[in-house]
Amino acid sequence: MSVQRPVVLIVGAGFGGLSAARALAAADAEIIVIDQRNHHIFQPLLYQVATAGLSPADIAGPVRSILSEQRNATVVLGRVCGVDAAARSVEIELRHGGDGPTRRQLRYDYLILATGARHAYFGNDHWERYAPGLKTLEDATAIRRRLLLAFERAEMAVDPAERDANLTIVVVGGGPTGVELAGSIAELARAALAKDFRRIDPRKARVLLVEAGPRLLPAFTEGHSEAARVALEKLGVSVRVNARVMDCDAAGVVVGEERIPAATLLWAAGVQASPAAAWLGAAADRAGRVLVGPDFGVPGCEGVFAIGDTASLTDAAGKVVPGVAPAAKQAGYYVGDLIVRRLSGWGDLPPFRYRNYGNLATIGRHAAVADFGWVRLRGGLAWWLWGIAHIFFLIDFRNRIAVTLNWLWSFVTFGRGARLITGNLAAQPAATEPPPPPAS
Amino acid sequence: MSVQRPVVLIVGAGFGGLSAARALAAADAEIIVIDQRNHHIFQPLLYQVATAGLSPADIAGPVRSILSEQRNATVVLGRVCGVDAAARSVEIELRHGGDGPTRRQLRYDYLILATGARHAYFGNDHWERYAPGLKTLEDATAIRRRLLLAFERAEMAVDPAERDANLTIVVVGGGPTGVELAGSIAELARAALAKDFRRIDPRKARVLLVEAGPRLLPAFTEGHSEAARVALEKLGVSVRVNARVMDCDAAGVVVGEERIPAATLLWAAGVQASPAAAWLGAAADRAGRVLVGPDFGVPGCEGVFAIGDTASLTDAAGKVVPGVAPAAKQAGYYVGDLIVRRLSGWGDLPPFRYRNYGNLATIGRHAAVADFGWVRLRGGLAWWLWGIAHIFFLIDFRNRIAVTLNWLWSFVTFGRGARLITGNLAAQPAATEPPPPPAS
Repeated sequence: MSVQRPVVLIVGAGFGGLSAARALAAADAEIIVIDQRNHHIFQPLLYQVATAGLSPADIAGPVRSILSEQRNATVVLGRVCGVDAAARSVEIELRHGGDGPTRRQLRYDYLILATGARHAYFGNDHWERYAPGLKTLEDATAIRRRLLLAFERAEMAVDPAERDANLTIVVVGGGPTGVELAGSIAELARAALAKDFRRIDPRKARVLLVEAGPRLLPAFTEGHSEAARVALEKLGVSVRVNARVMDCDAAGVVVGEERIPAATLLWAAGVQASPAAAWLGAAADRAGRVLVGPDFGVPGCEGVFAIGDTASLTDAAGKVVPGVAPAAKQAGYYVGDLIVRRLSGWGDLPPFRYRNYGNLATIGRHAAVADFGWVRLRGGLAWWLWGIAHIFFLIDFRNRIAVTLNWLWSFVTFGRGARLITGNLAAQPAATEPPPPPAS
Repeated sequence: MSVQRPVVLIVGAGFGGLSAARALAAADAEIIVIDQRNHHIFQPLLYQVATAGLSPADIAGPVRSILSEQRNATVVLGRVCGVDAAARSVEIELRHGGDGPTRRQLRYDYLILATGARHAYFGNDHWERYAPGLKTLEDATAIRRRLLLAFERAEMAVDPAERDANLTIVVVGGGPTGVELAGSIAELARAALAKDFRRIDPRKARVLLVEAGPRLLPAFTEGHSEAARVALEKLGVSVRVNARVMDCDAAGVVVGEERIPAATLLWAAGVQASPAAAWLGAAADRAGRVLVGPDFGVPGCEGVFAIGDTASLTDAAGKVVPGVAPAAKQAGYYVGDLIVRRLSGWGDLPPFRYRNYGNLATIGRHAAVADFGWVRLRGGLAWWLWGIAHIFFLIDFRNRIAVTLNWLWSFVTFGRGARLITGNLAAQPAATEPPPPPAS
């Protein structure tokens, strides 16, 4: 006769979900981690894959491998279709190829929804095919393919207008992702690609960074925003603030009243949470994030928590918990600990408080901005700090070595090692590329 | 008034094409290298990408970057559709996305066809969707996805027969690629995946290597064949010789009279040259290779050469030039030199002679066979030699470092770093995956 252990279902193997699983390592419970992909990715470096500086495997590790030593944890490759909070069960679709999707029901005692977010187009979802966003490895390799193919088209262009449009890249959104993408693309064109073409000069590529608000990096101080703008312009990026995108199509973008012909548009302007709120019938904010209680509990759904980009919370100190990796990790550990305490009958934890250890953003090879509250840095020192912090937080030690070496190599040679165009070239012209699959 | 320089068109940026381009570095000519992909791949290590040991970027380098310092060379990303040998022009299709394919005519004074080969199914081309082969990076990541998804399906299988079929992998063809694939898959299952599942034991996966002929590695001595068989069986691979595949489908394979249920079939049994002979209307052997003259010239086509896997030649010493990387490189340098001499009016070269520096094949982590004619090695020493030789011949120095570190890491930890399932899972069930694009 076996005693059924309580089941903790964790949906999503990002920073939040994995932290929760780790906090539950010693629990006498069955931990099931469900993700629709087999790998965890280190999202803060995804832009480096998109700009050919790193390989997908450098910033990703198999979820099974990350949890292989945690014997109470089971990993399921599947996609959640819905939650029955009354019956305490989740419906998942296995996505393993073979005879097509198969559905299963998984019951839970506790459910942690850490399903993340995707880019938002503010009601213009049809823009996605023209201006893709960056959330998954597939997004990153698709963007890499678009960027590199635009230079190929420019090299072969007969018409000067066609050549110029192919040498114009517009990044929409002046947050950290937009700033990092724009800086990295400018460097790709100016250094790594500089000698590779015969008819065009890749250094003449135009990189535009378009931000609807009054300044870049709104989460930082105004001094940092200004430093970021100066550093980007030194790299050759044209920065436009107070500039709103009115339309996108295969030929370019309309910013305010100006049409800019551009073959490559990239979207880093907003996020939309995964449909967790809809699964639960729970209240959500405008970005679709579940309005959770002070312990990330979903009101009205016993045993259900939402964390990370899936949740909207103002913490016990009155601070809005931001949608960044450290906040997701802290939330994961908090909820994991809370469930351990409840399972053990030790009572609850005090309400969650977010601890902000600082903000970091990088601009190309030598510049970065850092804000730790007590100290604010810009330039070279901030850049090195940024590099060390990112390598330190890469989950898998092997990846740390690979990333360090790739970076040192790029730093010394200005080269980019991962400049591969993969996927089916002929079947996926940029103008008609299908939108990426939705997140769950 | 500009003097038009002679044009040397090289189709294919594999070992043969790139060697020819390098031999022409000092020529007063315009060298145009056309490939349908933007990267050169180090094919002897492709099986490591397919089995999650290396990343695509570890074994591939952008053709533009390899030739960036060679100022007389231009790279074109395009696919050859046909050759007009009378008019001395080649029709290519640019494959850059955007508004779909565009055709261009390129005229030449000399044409080198180094377009390689793909796997052959001996009249059963419909088997390709069930038993894919390994020639491109896309092939390798597709095989990696199939292999890893089969273990995922096995983990979730309810029916024991379904579980066992998903834990059965059949590799068809006992040449170096088949031997290396089978050994590497057995190690993946036995070491890297061993602790990652909860319901199945990946160490119990069955790996079958099926060869129609009487022994493995027919290009080596019988002693080596036997050593390879013993080493593979020690790794847990079942080797079947004199075993012919009669049929393949989504559920398995028929070998002789026995049906073997297997979710993963891989094809390493034969090659078919690209359609260069058809473009030229030239005579070809049964595998489609152009029957070339003693200097790789195509009879009846002035200024046209075919090299590497595209050509069939018995050299001046009476040896058949084999379809291996060193032979393709030697042919490329030979034809490049020959064109330099003709352009300079220095006359011709003596007929080509293939120099065989040895054969090497590896079987898993510690075993390999090597045959240099004057010395024959097996086991650990041959394995280290194999590793050093491969790293040494990787074209790009950066790749050498990455490969060395990945290997040292795998060697120490038994892990596999590149265990990513990428691409669209739901849209490409294994049974209905579309065939890979044809080579040109």
